[in-house]
Amino acid sequence: MPVRAVSEFDLINHYFKSFACKRTDVLLGIGDDCALLQPPAGKQLAMTADTLVAGVHFPVNTSAFDIGYKSLAVNLSDLAAMGAEPAWAILAITLPAADESWLQEFMRGFSVLADEYGVQLIGGDTTSGPLSITVQLTGFVTSSQVLRRDTAKPGDKIYVSGTLGDAALGLKKVLGQLVTKNSLVHCVSRLNRPVPRVALGRELSAISQCGIDISDGLVADLGHIANASGCAANIYLSKLPLSDELRNFYGNDVDWSVIVAGGDDYELCFTLPSENELSIKVMADKCCMQMSCIGEIISGHGIHCFDAAGMEVVFENTGYNHFSNIK
Amino acid sequence: MPVRAVSEFDLINHYFKSFACKRTDVLLGIGDDCALLQPPAGKQLAMTADTLVAGVHFPVNTSAFDIGYKSLAVNLSDLAAMGAEPAWAILAITLPAADESWLQEFMRGFSVLADEYGVQLIGGDTTSGPLSITVQLTGFVTSSQVLRRDTAKPGDKIYVSGTLGDAALGLKKVLGQLVTKNSLVHCVSRLNRPVPRVALGRELSAISQCGIDISDGLVADLGHIANASGCAANIYLSKLPLSDELRNFYGNDVDWSVIVAGGDDYELCFTLPSENELSIKVMADKCCMQMSCIGEIISGHGIHCFDAAGMEVVFENTGYNHFSNIK
Repeated sequence: MPVRAVSEFDLINHYFKSFACKRTDVLLGIGDDCALLQPPAGKQLAMTADTLVAGVHFPVNTSAFDIGYKSLAVNLSDLAAMGAEPAWAILAITLPAADESWLQEFMRGFSVLADEYGVQLIGGDTTSGPLSITVQLTGFVTSSQVLRRDTAKPGDKIYVSGTLGDAALGLKKVLGQLVTKNSLVHCVSRLNRPVPRVALGRELSAISQCGIDISDGLVADLGHIANASGCAANIYLSKLPLSDELRNFYGNDVDWSVIVAGGDDYELCFTLPSENELSIKVMADKCCMQMSCIGEIISGHGIHCFDAAGMEVVFENTGYNHFSNIK
Repeated sequence: MPVRAVSEFDLINHYFKSFACKRTDVLLGIGDDCALLQPPAGKQLAMTADTLVAGVHFPVNTSAFDIGYKSLAVNLSDLAAMGAEPAWAILAITLPAADESWLQEFMRGFSVLADEYGVQLIGGDTTSGPLSITVQLTGFVTSSQVLRRDTAKPGDKIYVSGTLGDAALGLKKVLGQLVTKNSLVHCVSRLNRPVPRVALGRELSAISQCGIDISDGLVADLGHIANASGCAANIYLSKLPLSDELRNFYGNDVDWSVIVAGGDDYELCFTLPSENELSIKVMADKCCMQMSCIGEIISGHGIHCFDAAGMEVVFENTGYNHFSNIK
């Protein structure tokens, strides 16, 4: 009996297998029950996985290219947050139908980023169902140079890379929630094509032990550091780094909840003992990254935000909770 | 500002973190941006991922326990098919709502199997959306002892473990497609709680170089071996191993399409040079597994099935194609 004719499945396998990046530590890639990998001597593995669900993690009208790009970017950001070097990706994709042109664009977005960071796609599973993408990503670290969440200490300064709130403002624009003719190109780009701070994370792991990537919003993610480290944090709103586009949009009436709780920033938040503050300037130049000191770790519990007048500001929602949206 | 109150998310994290199995090669488990792992010296990694979508891979009324069990079982089966030793699991679960009792049962099913095979849950992502589970599993192999798909040779005998068709018949029962009062307990159990052939896979890797697990059906999966190895196969229906329950159900009128193309068997199909045939009997006793020679690898293309009279039988559908169901 002939083996079943070429199906949509085989088309998908074709896209997976035509992936450009080939690493020498991949002994057997896509096409068997498992991939076989040679882990590097003297290194540890950093492993993460993130799922993007249509209508939850991205608007349903997001382009296939951007979905492919972002599904890898958010995982690269997790590796960046540990100071890891990216290596191998596994892609589990659930699609309502095998739309060849959609898939081609999706893989183009995924591949652009994979090539840039030397990531090889080593396996995948394609299933039918409501659109959803899970990427599992593995990288390498040296155990003495790792950014963790549980190593902040009272007295440490708190830094963030880049600017905050752009993606959250971009999302409002895309969802038609803003009354403006401003196209907010920068903010929408930050939403759809976040740049994972991989190089910065690796550099930081030499001078800091504590970091996280900001995916759920500054207060929520810094809260994870505070909780895990058993301490608290003071944040000064006037020190939060804002892009020109966002600043121009808001003028003197900044919606701070967008900045501290909007999420999807994919910047790194990390802590540094005061004595390491000088080296951060060198690193900022080396990585061509804006780096801002936004507050400090203190004893106690929780994240405390202060306005320019020194008054504490309390925000209602401080991090995206998927289930709170639908219950 | 206080960190956000305990949410459903935190409850889920609680279930993930309370996972019993603790391995010494897990340097940092659930709770940071990535897990950190120490790969074993002198071994290679085998990595796989499989997604189960509600209504596609399991009936929507399947119990949470069985979904949890099966989501790990199908991945363990992929490791078994390479002869790998299971180690680390990552669980990405998409849920319509944070139902605590459902999740508790799901994790109980997942954990039963994880404990049995020494697998530690090292990370997870929980998102809201239509029910879907992706498990990524990593195991260890020695590169000289691996079962692959592309190493079959003409003259090799073809073997399968256990019995075939039980899960496919069980699915028909569960979906109400059978006119029978027979509860088909064995077949339904084989559908919901497949036993991954991990120990057998590891033993086999010493005497065979070629194997696959049967998830899509014998003809489809043996077809992968034939395609990858550039050869063909003859299969004899009369030699296919059937359970007593299935044999009793069908009597003398076996629906062979259920046996060769029903899928969800999670048995191993492997090839052996004739001179290794004796050792298979020793192994069958050691693993307490039925092992049946069902045909042979030949030159050519495709999978050819023959009935007891020696006539070739051609089947219409020879493997589950997700997209063909919905287009």
